[in-house]
Amino acid sequence: MEVQGKNILGFSNGEGAVKTFRTYNPKRNEENHFVIEEATEEMAYESVRKAHLAWEAYRFMPISRRAEFLRKIAESFRAERVYLEQIFCLESGLSEKRAAAELDRTCFQLEHFAKAIEQNQRLLPSESDSDEACFLNKRFLSLGPVVVFGASNFPFAYSTMGGDSASALAAGCPVIVKGHEMHAGTGDLVAQLVNRAAKETKMPDGVFSNLNAKGHWLGAFLVKHELVKAVGFTGSIPGGMALYQIAQNRKEPIPFFAEMGSVNPIVVLPQKLKDEKEQLVTLIRDSMTLDAGQFCTNPGLVIGLASSEWDYLVHEMSAAVKAIAPQVMVHPDLYEKYYGGLERNVLLLQEKGVNVELPEKTGIAEPFMVELSAETFVSSQVLAEEVFGLHTLFVRCKDEAQLLEVLNNLAGQLTCSVFASDSELKQYRSVFEWGMSHAGRMVLNGVPTGVTVDRDMHHGGPFPASSDSRFTAVGSDAIARFLRPICFQGFSEKQLKELIS
Amino acid sequence: MEVQGKNILGFSNGEGAVKTFRTYNPKRNEENHFVIEEATEEMAYESVRKAHLAWEAYRFMPISRRAEFLRKIAESFRAERVYLEQIFCLESGLSEKRAAAELDRTCFQLEHFAKAIEQNQRLLPSESDSDEACFLNKRFLSLGPVVVFGASNFPFAYSTMGGDSASALAAGCPVIVKGHEMHAGTGDLVAQLVNRAAKETKMPDGVFSNLNAKGHWLGAFLVKHELVKAVGFTGSIPGGMALYQIAQNRKEPIPFFAEMGSVNPIVVLPQKLKDEKEQLVTLIRDSMTLDAGQFCTNPGLVIGLASSEWDYLVHEMSAAVKAIAPQVMVHPDLYEKYYGGLERNVLLLQEKGVNVELPEKTGIAEPFMVELSAETFVSSQVLAEEVFGLHTLFVRCKDEAQLLEVLNNLAGQLTCSVFASDSELKQYRSVFEWGMSHAGRMVLNGVPTGVTVDRDMHHGGPFPASSDSRFTAVGSDAIARFLRPICFQGFSEKQLKELIS
Repeated sequence: MEVQGKNILGFSNGEGAVKTFRTYNPKRNEENHFVIEEATEEMAYESVRKAHLAWEAYRFMPISRRAEFLRKIAESFRAERVYLEQIFCLESGLSEKRAAAELDRTCFQLEHFAKAIEQNQRLLPSESDSDEACFLNKRFLSLGPVVVFGASNFPFAYSTMGGDSASALAAGCPVIVKGHEMHAGTGDLVAQLVNRAAKETKMPDGVFSNLNAKGHWLGAFLVKHELVKAVGFTGSIPGGMALYQIAQNRKEPIPFFAEMGSVNPIVVLPQKLKDEKEQLVTLIRDSMTLDAGQFCTNPGLVIGLASSEWDYLVHEMSAAVKAIAPQVMVHPDLYEKYYGGLERNVLLLQEKGVNVELPEKTGIAEPFMVELSAETFVSSQVLAEEVFGLHTLFVRCKDEAQLLEVLNNLAGQLTCSVFASDSELKQYRSVFEWGMSHAGRMVLNGVPTGVTVDRDMHHGGPFPASSDSRFTAVGSDAIARFLRPICFQGFSEKQLKELIS
Repeated sequence: MEVQGKNILGFSNGEGAVKTFRTYNPKRNEENHFVIEEATEEMAYESVRKAHLAWEAYRFMPISRRAEFLRKIAESFRAERVYLEQIFCLESGLSEKRAAAELDRTCFQLEHFAKAIEQNQRLLPSESDSDEACFLNKRFLSLGPVVVFGASNFPFAYSTMGGDSASALAAGCPVIVKGHEMHAGTGDLVAQLVNRAAKETKMPDGVFSNLNAKGHWLGAFLVKHELVKAVGFTGSIPGGMALYQIAQNRKEPIPFFAEMGSVNPIVVLPQKLKDEKEQLVTLIRDSMTLDAGQFCTNPGLVIGLASSEWDYLVHEMSAAVKAIAPQVMVHPDLYEKYYGGLERNVLLLQEKGVNVELPEKTGIAEPFMVELSAETFVSSQVLAEEVFGLHTLFVRCKDEAQLLEVLNNLAGQLTCSVFASDSELKQYRSVFEWGMSHAGRMVLNGVPTGVTVDRDMHHGGPFPASSDSRFTAVGSDAIARFLRPICFQGFSEKQLKELIS
C-alpha cells in the first residue's frame, strides 16, 4: 500500500486541491518523496456534511457492530503494519521498535474501547437483556461529529486513529481528523485503512474523514462548524487554548477536550533515596531520555532535599545523561522549539549565577539537565514551564517547606510522582496533598512515563495540563467525553426495548 | 428567627455595606419590610478567600461528616420551616402548599446527596474497606470553591441551598451563593441555617457564604475570581451565556454548568388522543398551568395531527384555560417579561392572519394558549423561543412530515414528551429519534413537569437547554459536575488506605 496524499472524505477523496506539501525525514534531513494535498474549504465543508449524515445512521447501529468496526480497524493495521511502520519511521525519526510498540498500543486501544462499549449496559442502542426498566432509565447517546487534532509525538497512538478518534467512534460519533502535518503520510495510510475497515463492516460513508492543511485555517474552520459537536486535541497550551476559545465562543459552545502537557514533577524523598539510590538513577534517567523526551508525561523537574545522596543522584544523573547519544526529534521545528527553550532557560540561569552551559546547536537533541536551588527556581515563573524534549531541572531544597514552595510554583499537572519510603508516606503528607490538588495521576515509587490504557487510568489534570480536569484522554473513560445522558421516563420494559435496541 | 439582611461570609457577617434594597411581595404589590444589604467587593473577595481556606480542610474530611452536615442542614430547615415558608410566600407569591412541598423537596435532595456520597466507594477521602488496591486506582476529588446562581422560580429547591449548592457540598466543594435578589430574605434565612448546621457539625468557617447585590457586577466578580473552580447556574439564556463566556475566557477556564430553559414540546399522536382524550386534556392543562407556569419544564408547545380529536383537545384546553383564575407571578419583572413575550407573539401571529387577542395587562398572569398551523409556526424562529410563564402554542400538523418539520425548528430541549399508543411507538419512530437527538429526557404518556430527584434523572439537554449536555442539575449524578478523577498508581492497598482515608 502507498501514500496517496489525498484528503479523505468518508469513502471519497477530495478533488480539486490547489496546494500540496511534503513531510520531513528528520533522520536523513530531507523531505519525504510523497506529496500531500492540502484540503480546500469545500472539502472541509463536505467532510462535516458527510459526518453529520453518517451520524444519523451510525449512532443507532447496534453496539456489537460498532465494536466490530473498531476491531476490524485494529486488524487492518496489523495486516499492513510493515507499510505503516515504515512511513511512521520516515516521518518521525523514531525507532522501528517504537513504531511496533506504538502500533500495538493503537490496536490494543481500539480493542479496549470495543470491549468497553460491549460491557456498558447503558449505551444506546442497548443490547442488554437484563436491564430492568423502571419509571426512570438513564442511558447514554453520542454527541455528534467529533473533530480530532492529533499529537505530533504519537503518529499512531494519539493521532489519526489514536485514543481520541477511537473513543469518539466507540461513543457513536463520526470523526473528522485534522491531520498533523508532520506525519501526514502516516495519517494517510491510517485513514485509508480505517475507511477500508468501515466499508468491510458496512459502516456509513462519512463515519471517518482525514484532512490535511498547513496553517491554522482548517482547524478553526472545523471547530467553528455548527454540525461539529465536540473536539479532542493533544498539543501545546497556546494551540489548545486558541482552539478552545473558538469552541467556547461559538453560538453553541461545544465540549473541547485539550490535553496540553505538563512538567510532571518527580519528588525524591530522602530516606527512599538513601535506600535505593542506584535504582532511582536508572529509573529516572530512562524516563527522562526515552525517545528524546517527547512525551507529555516526560519528567521535566526532579525535586529533593539537600543531602549527600541528593548530590550523588545529581552527579550520577549528570554523568548518565552525558553518556547518552544525542537523539533526533520528530521534526526540525520541534528541535528548534526545544533549543529555544534551552537557550531561554540557560541565559536566565546564568544571570542568576548558576554554572550552566548552553549545548551546541547541532540539530540533534542532547539531553540537558542542570541542578539549581529552590530559591533560584521560584525566582522565575518561566522555569516552571514545560520545555518539550530532553530538558530536566533538578531542584535542591533545604527542607520540606521549601519543597512545598517549589511545588506551589507549579500549575496543574498530568502527573506527580513521589519516591517515598513507607514512613515518608506519612511524614511528607503535604507533598501528597499537593499532588492530590494539582495532578491527575499520583505515582508512588515510579516514573510518570508509560501511560497504561486501562479503565482506571486518568490522563488529564487541573488546568493547564488539560482544559477540563473532569475527563481523561486515555483509558475507556475517555469515551465519556463524547456521550450525553438521556433519561427515559414512563417507558415499560417492553416499550424501552422496542425503542432503543 | 428573622431576616437579618446581612451578607454572610462563612461564620461572619459582612460589615460596611453602603447600599441596601428590599424584596417585593407580588401578592400585596408592595415591598417587604426587611432590608437586605448589598455586598461590597471586599466582602466578595473575603467570601472567596474563606471558601478556598475552608476547601483545604473540607475536601479531606471523612465522607460521613460531609453527609452528616448535609443531613443537619435538612434537619434545621425542617425545624424552622414555619419561618422559612412564611418568607418564601411573602417573596414569591407562591402558595403555602407549594412552599411546603418545595421545602420537603429541598430536604429530600440534601439527604439524597448524603446517601449518594456514602454509597460511592470511589470518593475521596475513602471510607471503603472492601476496595482492593490494584496497580491503578481511580478516585474522585472535589474541584474547589463553587459559585451558585439560584433560580428565581425555586426559592428553596434551586436556589440558596438547592440542587446546585447541595451537590457541590456533597462533592466536597465549599459554596458561595450569589443570592437571587427576588427572594433575598428567604435566602438569608436559609443561609443562616446552613451556617448554623455547619457550626453544629464542626465544618470549617467559609464552607458556605451567601452574598446579595443588585445588577451584574457581583456575579461577574465571583466567576472571574481565580480561586473559584466551578459554577452552577439556573436562569435565562442571555444571563447564563454572559456568565458562561466570562468563565471560559478566564486565564484558567472553569466548568460552568448552566440550565437555561426550554419549550418542552409535547407531541400528541392521533391514536392515543382518540383513546384517552379526556385524560390528556386534564394532564396537559395541569402541567401547563401549575404555579403560573414558572417551571423550566413547563410545556410551551403542544403538537399534533389535524383530526376531530385534535379539534376537541384544542377546544377543551381553550375552555379549561379560560376557566383558570389568573395567577400572580413571583415578581413584577417576571410578569413584565411574560407579557412582553405574549405581546411579541400575538402581534406576530396577527400579522400572519391568526385570530388571536392580546389579554389585558392586569399585572396578574392569565393563561395564554393559541392554536396555529405548522406552516405559521415554522415561518418564524421567534415562535420557537420560550416565553416563561403561562404561554403554550398548539401547533396543528397535516402529517408526520410536517410534525417533524415543526420539531426540527426547535433547538435543544430539557424534555420531549410523547403521547403514543403502543403501535404509535413504532409507527412514529422518527418523533422519538428527534427526541433522542434533541432532548435530555424523553417522557412517554406523561407531562414534562415534575422532575424526580433520582440517580436516573437527567435534567439538562443539548444547547441551549443547558451549556453542557453531559451533566445534570437534578439527581445524584449532579455531584459529578464538581468532581475530578485522580489515578493512584503503584500504591499498595495499605499505602492507599493510609493516604486517602
